[in-house]
Amino acid sequence: MRLDAAALHDLVARILARAGLSAENAAIVARVVVAAERDGTVSHGLFRLPGYLATLRSGWVDGHAVPTVTQVAPTLLLADGRNGFAQVALAAARDRLSAMARTQGMAALCAGNVHHFAALWPDIEPFAEAGFIALTVINTRSRIVAFGGRRKVLGTNPMAFACPRGDGPPLVWDQASSVLAQGEVLRARQAGHAVAPGVGVDTAGRPTTDPAAILDGGALLPFGGHKGADIALMIEVLAAALTGGCFGFEDRSAAYPGAQTSNAGQFVLLIDPARTAGTGFSARIELLLAALREAGSARLPADARHARRLVAADGIELPDSVHADLLAMLEE
Amino acid sequence: MRLDAAALHDLVARILARAGLSAENAAIVARVVVAAERDGTVSHGLFRLPGYLATLRSGWVDGHAVPTVTQVAPTLLLADGRNGFAQVALAAARDRLSAMARTQGMAALCAGNVHHFAALWPDIEPFAEAGFIALTVINTRSRIVAFGGRRKVLGTNPMAFACPRGDGPPLVWDQASSVLAQGEVLRARQAGHAVAPGVGVDTAGRPTTDPAAILDGGALLPFGGHKGADIALMIEVLAAALTGGCFGFEDRSAAYPGAQTSNAGQFVLLIDPARTAGTGFSARIELLLAALREAGSARLPADARHARRLVAADGIELPDSVHADLLAMLEE
Repeated sequence: MRLDAAALHDLVARILARAGLSAENAAIVARVVVAAERDGTVSHGLFRLPGYLATLRSGWVDGHAVPTVTQVAPTLLLADGRNGFAQVALAAARDRLSAMARTQGMAALCAGNVHHFAALWPDIEPFAEAGFIALTVINTRSRIVAFGGRRKVLGTNPMAFACPRGDGPPLVWDQASSVLAQGEVLRARQAGHAVAPGVGVDTAGRPTTDPAAILDGGALLPFGGHKGADIALMIEVLAAALTGGCFGFEDRSAAYPGAQTSNAGQFVLLIDPARTAGTGFSARIELLLAALREAGSARLPADARHARRLVAADGIELPDSVHADLLAMLEE
Repeated sequence: MRLDAAALHDLVARILARAGLSAENAAIVARVVVAAERDGTVSHGLFRLPGYLATLRSGWVDGHAVPTVTQVAPTLLLADGRNGFAQVALAAARDRLSAMARTQGMAALCAGNVHHFAALWPDIEPFAEAGFIALTVINTRSRIVAFGGRRKVLGTNPMAFACPRGDGPPLVWDQASSVLAQGEVLRARQAGHAVAPGVGVDTAGRPTTDPAAILDGGALLPFGGHKGADIALMIEVLAAALTGGCFGFEDRSAAYPGAQTSNAGQFVLLIDPARTAGTGFSARIELLLAALREAGSARLPADARHARRLVAADGIELPDSVHADLLAMLEE
């Protein structure tokens, strides 16, 4: 079964709208779901739809949220996502944020009271396509145990970075602060696979490779030991304390059975490299990437995604069973 | 032997001036050397002085550099360090950068043509003491092999983060993009110790625990696998491409026997949290740190440094042999 991206977007948006998103918000969220599926970020593609639906049906997220966006300083936009999805707040701020960054050299969006359930890179890749260096972080509910602690406090708190290139799609990476993203652990549990040693611990804090033991009362470990924990801690500061959003440990989603998101925050920073490095910036980035390739790095960040995107230009391949599942979601 | 910080600063500044730094630049660099020694960041304290002296005597760094600082956008300062130490460029920009961040909500310094041979945290802790969230990155000569490559391209590229607190010293961390900082590998070689497995590889790319094999033709590994490499790559973009500085692989220090620094770049970002989170920001940070301590994290980032700093308030303990070495450096 092969669907073109527009048709898949339409189908996903209808499914989300049926589950309680306004038509406008459904179109925004569907974009990031389809982008992830198209690029092979499978754990954040169609795989996530049942989680979106369960979360919406639990009443935990407001599918009709209309965010407020206020400029609080020449470079800072403060958004209240009104308990909706983070992509909706970003969409409401996007044009203003770009214009501010162009004028001021830098600008940031600080969005609180938002739920982020998607891959992060689709939020910033368009900014890099428009010539900006972009960095974004979000915090999530507590999932990581760190700094010698006995209980998880920090979220898996991902960070994504995007840098424009003169030709071709931007240099982009997107990574959780845990060794493995929560979505990958969910996929392992669903597939009945173990995860690698060093990914997580069980309820008693003992190392385990059982995804269920990690997810049910256990915890994930930060990548690179205390260094990943330092990053996760920074992200609680930038995504929550700075935005007015909730910390991961303040999550109240347990009161909403089925809810799979955290009401948390997002920080998005844009820098205009043309202001410091002029038109020569692109050539410098190409030189850096060429040096890595010459040293033998066949695969740089986003290469795999962009290669799959080229393949998907002729349509996104879906197993028949997945397509049937989507049609069934329309009937639920 | 116990010296108070001011006396040690005076001694270090005289040593640096004798080796070729102007009096003003010597005072600036001595500050970060003494701060590291005082806080127990031993690999970046007095231990580094012979490296400073050898580098200065090689002619690779201009000890009398007078940086230029230009405002290129309302939020962006572009500095040319004139082949001097990075702390000198930062000192030249510091007051203006703070004033811009206060007015605009954010500001950044992009400094190229600088040499950074010190710990990073002393650069930004004062900004956090003044109420700013501060993030800084520098790139270094190529030392990390990553992304499946055969040769090192990326530097050990450290990042430091500082966040203000209502009471007590700021929350601060500072970490290399390699599993172990280059300075720690140098210390291990000097002490005749092996390093842990996973830290680096030898000339042939084989895992080794021998610091000499890592330093002499081998390479360091990024922390957390490709995730640390992603961070190191981002830092090449921010510290070099954005600032007009050299990439790590463009380093020409080999032409200056004895030189131990890279001519590279530094990026420093300030954010004023009062603009988005108001006066409640400090209470939120205390809540976050309290949650970590309650979960059993007895030691958070910078705790150990700040504890040693309290002890050093009565004077910095030096072995007699180290003090004798310092006096000998004055005579060299």
